Amino acid sequence: MSLIGKHILSSDLFDRDQLEELFELADVLAPVARGRQVTRVLEGAVMASLFFEASTRTRLSCETAFLRLGGGVTSSTGAEIMSISKGESLADTSRVVTGYCDLVVMRHPEVSAVHEFAAATNIPVVNCGNGAGEHPTQALLDMFTLHREFARIGLPMDGRRIALVGDLRHGRTVHSLIKLLSRYEGLTIVCVAPDSLGMPVELMELAENRGHRVEQSDQPRTGLKGADVIYTTRLQTERFADKPVPYSDDFRIDKALFSEVGGPDTVIMHPLPRDGRPGSNDLATDLNGDPRLAVFRQTDAGIPMRMALFASVLGVADAVADSLRPATWYRPEYTGPEDAPFYKNAR
Amino acid sequence: MSLIGKHILSSDLFDRDQLEELFELADVLAPVARGRQVTRVLEGAVMASLFFEASTRTRLSCETAFLRLGGGVTSSTGAEIMSISKGESLADTSRVVTGYCDLVVMRHPEVSAVHEFAAATNIPVVNCGNGAGEHPTQALLDMFTLHREFARIGLPMDGRRIALVGDLRHGRTVHSLIKLLSRYEGLTIVCVAPDSLGMPVELMELAENRGHRVEQSDQPRTGLKGADVIYTTRLQTERFADKPVPYSDDFRIDKALFSEVGGPDTVIMHPLPRDGRPGSNDLATDLNGDPRLAVFRQTDAGIPMRMALFASVLGVADAVADSLRPATWYRPEYTGPEDAPFYKNAR
Amino acid sequence: MSLIGKHILSSDLFDRDQLEELFELADVLAPVARGRQVTRVLEGAVMASLFFEASTRTRLSCETAFLRLGGGVTSSTGAEIMSISKGESLADTSRVVTGYCDLVVMRHPEVSAVHEFAAATNIPVVNCGNGAGEHPTQALLDMFTLHREFARIGLPMDGRRIALVGDLRHGRTVHSLIKLLSRYEGLTIVCVAPDSLGMPVELMELAENRGHRVEQSDQPRTGLKGADVIYTTRLQTERFADKPVPYSDDFRIDKALFSEVGGPDTVIMHPLPRDGRPGSNDLATDLNGDPRLAVFRQTDAGIPMRMALFASVLGVADAVADSLRPATWYRPEYTGPEDAPFYKNAR
Repeated sequence: MSLIGKHILSSDLFDRDQLEELFELADVLAPVARGRQVTRVLEGAVMASLFFEASTRTRLSCETAFLRLGGGVTSSTGAEIMSISKGESLADTSRVVTGYCDLVVMRHPEVSAVHEFAAATNIPVVNCGNGAGEHPTQALLDMFTLHREFARIGLPMDGRRIALVGDLRHGRTVHSLIKLLSRYEGLTIVCVAPDSLGMPVELMELAENRGHRVEQSDQPRTGLKGADVIYTTRLQTERFADKPVPYSDDFRIDKALFSEVGGPDTVIMHPLPRDGRPGSNDLATDLNGDPRLAVFRQTDAGIPMRMALFASVLGVADAVADSLRPATWYRPEYTGPEDAPFYKNAR
Repeated sequence: MSLIGKHILSSDLFDRDQLEELFELADVLAPVARGRQVTRVLEGAVMASLFFEASTRTRLSCETAFLRLGGGVTSSTGAEIMSISKGESLADTSRVVTGYCDLVVMRHPEVSAVHEFAAATNIPVVNCGNGAGEHPTQALLDMFTLHREFARIGLPMDGRRIALVGDLRHGRTVHSLIKLLSRYEGLTIVCVAPDSLGMPVELMELAENRGHRVEQSDQPRTGLKGADVIYTTRLQTERFADKPVPYSDDFRIDKALFSEVGGPDTVIMHPLPRDGRPGSNDLATDLNGDPRLAVFRQTDAGIPMRMALFASVLGVADAVADSLRPATWYRPEYTGPEDAPFYKNAR
Repeated sequence: MSLIGKHILSSDLFDRDQLEELFELADVLAPVARGRQVTRVLEGAVMASLFFEASTRTRLSCETAFLRLGGGVTSSTGAEIMSISKGESLADTSRVVTGYCDLVVMRHPEVSAVHEFAAATNIPVVNCGNGAGEHPTQALLDMFTLHREFARIGLPMDGRRIALVGDLRHGRTVHSLIKLLSRYEGLTIVCVAPDSLGMPVELMELAENRGHRVEQSDQPRTGLKGADVIYTTRLQTERFADKPVPYSDDFRIDKALFSEVGGPDTVIMHPLPRDGRPGSNDLATDLNGDPRLAVFRQTDAGIPMRMALFASVLGVADAVADSLRPATWYRPEYTGPEDAPFYKNAR
């Protein structure tokens, strides 16, 4: 199935062939993402960036990806776009924007909004987070990172043991990710969460129905043991209102815990942002500098991955390779310990 | 009179020849607006988008139009631009921005602000709404839509019966529109509003002085009867403070009312946004899908119309045609019932 | 020392040779800044504009400068970027953005933030204001203006009498400026401020150690007498919290005071915004139209100066001259009395 003209609302849209095609295109685009090459393949195209729920990372990443392809961006965020509706329906907003631009990226606090929006337009809508629903472009960059990490380590993707840990109930990134993982074969997916924050049952069943082994644990110390990948997540406090949060120190992923459960090639991931404040039960900063920490390789991967997606949806994927030319400005090489292995392989 | 270098503060600036020149240029630019062709005629130019009063539609439309011409956009909106003034006068802000960019589009809650701003700069300022004052680019796109609609139906613009309905007192779009309508000949302009929300007398006199027949009515059922165009507007609730609003259900334009007052070719317009919530007395959504509903043809028309205006003001109108080249990306055709007749004629 | 790849955190980075190289490049870029020529020397590059503290002038100036060089801009400001951190450290934000873009311009209310941010990335970070710390790009444009003003008057920079007046304690622009002034020779720098708002001692010592004469005064009437340049500043009320402000009418720079202390070639500068409201003790508007008022020549100079800086940091300074081509759109000449002498010399 071609992605040309498609809405990207759920990661379930992608099968394995499509994923691998996207990864290949993202590899071609990586030098553009890093300021080594230039393409203008989307010159003249315009993307509308509509973040009804504020965001910095995802919005900047999408906008940069579109600019790096040569396109232009017009943007409206948070307070402005929400307060100015004057009672306008999402369907009207969607139909209006249809006449302006060629692609919409949007985030909205309600799960249903992106579907309503997409139903009212025939230009592609890319879901960049719909409440506790999905976040398919994050899942794509996560899979692209995994793909590269296993290539680096020299292991096949199939058959790996992948642990997802944290607030698996509200974390839309893990919801989108498990759907993509399930496109591979023979994985063991370990869902490690407090009882009240477990992975939705239908998503575990989906993975099982596609032939994977799904395990559950509420104990990081045992649940994470032996995993090839530990995908950590932030507690989605904004989804709790005033209730006390059932989240113990055991869920803090730090050097001490990792030295117990991790191996020499265990990859640690996180969609970021992480809460780095003392006492937070999130991915700790004391793992910074450990080459197994892939979190910034993930954010780096977001640019070429989103470029690959936008190029595919707008039908210019085949034109990318011939459009590349060398960049003329100076951009220093990355030197952090967490970057070297990634980029050694990537170029 | 040439538009090169002119401030666009009021729609009264445009005479009929100018309007028709702009419409012609907008027709040439329509394929660019729709992502079928590309121009870079303004490559290197920069527009400042200063919305002291927040907006989404108009701001995104102006920014997209400038980007589609090949220019760059820098933008400041609402809270930021208002709170950061630190006591700076509009004249100072204007003179500062003069040294940055080539064109300013601005919206401001006060009628006088755009005039103060324009007086302090020699680069063109385009008024995108000044309080209850004017909104000339909206009027231009409305006229462009009318022009296309009558071409589609096969009627001349002159001699038509045009009904304006709703809050005609506070609606700046109808204030700007009536000035442009009056540039044509032998129209009957019907102002349908509650007594307290009637069209300002000086605007009705202007139309009469230019040879048009102006009628008034506070009854939509009779006032709208036989109109070639019904131009509906939203109640400008933000201009009422806490007073009760004298607005009855009769002013709700819906399928039921339209089936009484409309004919087979009656065009329904609205500047949007419309309040689509149940019980609102605005243009109802039950007319969606009716090909006579031109509201999204209006918003679509905003891009080529604003492109034509910016190109004219910046003196590149004559260079547009030779600058066009085919777009390389995929953009699906519009398929909604409200789009087909418009685009069939437009290309 | 080359600027390629350097963070621009403090104006102390620049020595005299570097300043003069930058001025030369800014002179080459002036026609681009004024919409007379076009360059695309940074086509494909992306700048992230991160204003943790809101700003309009500086942000629009930086964004315009980058756009005029052919680059793309992605922007996040104020409320959005601050509230969305979810506890993320500046180091994480910095490392994430490293993978997105080629250059960061940032403003932050805390002095230390820009240093933390810069320490975590290897792409250039340009400080656009860190609390009461520094504002090096403002100092560069101030020096560029001085350089042009003295060229116009026919005096060398060395040996001049420069008065700095106002809130010299909190004004980050004068902190950055005095460091650049001290790179020249034999200046007399007069610091005119109320006792409690004096220039930090270490900055006065720095100037003295580099061979300049530093004088202090709390009386504008005597302190400003005979100055070649009067650099006025705004009271930084946002740094005072609720304390009463020790600032008398004597610090109001207006026509009356200037007719006492100024000569026929005395240059008046101000970093803007100035508080133009009646009763404010700031640079008054009654000097508008006086050709000695250089404040808008300063803001104008910000575009070519920032272009020169960005081009230098990104290693394309040598490519600029050959990249220039004529602009195709119409931009009117400046005609204000305060512009003419500046531009007569500049072109």
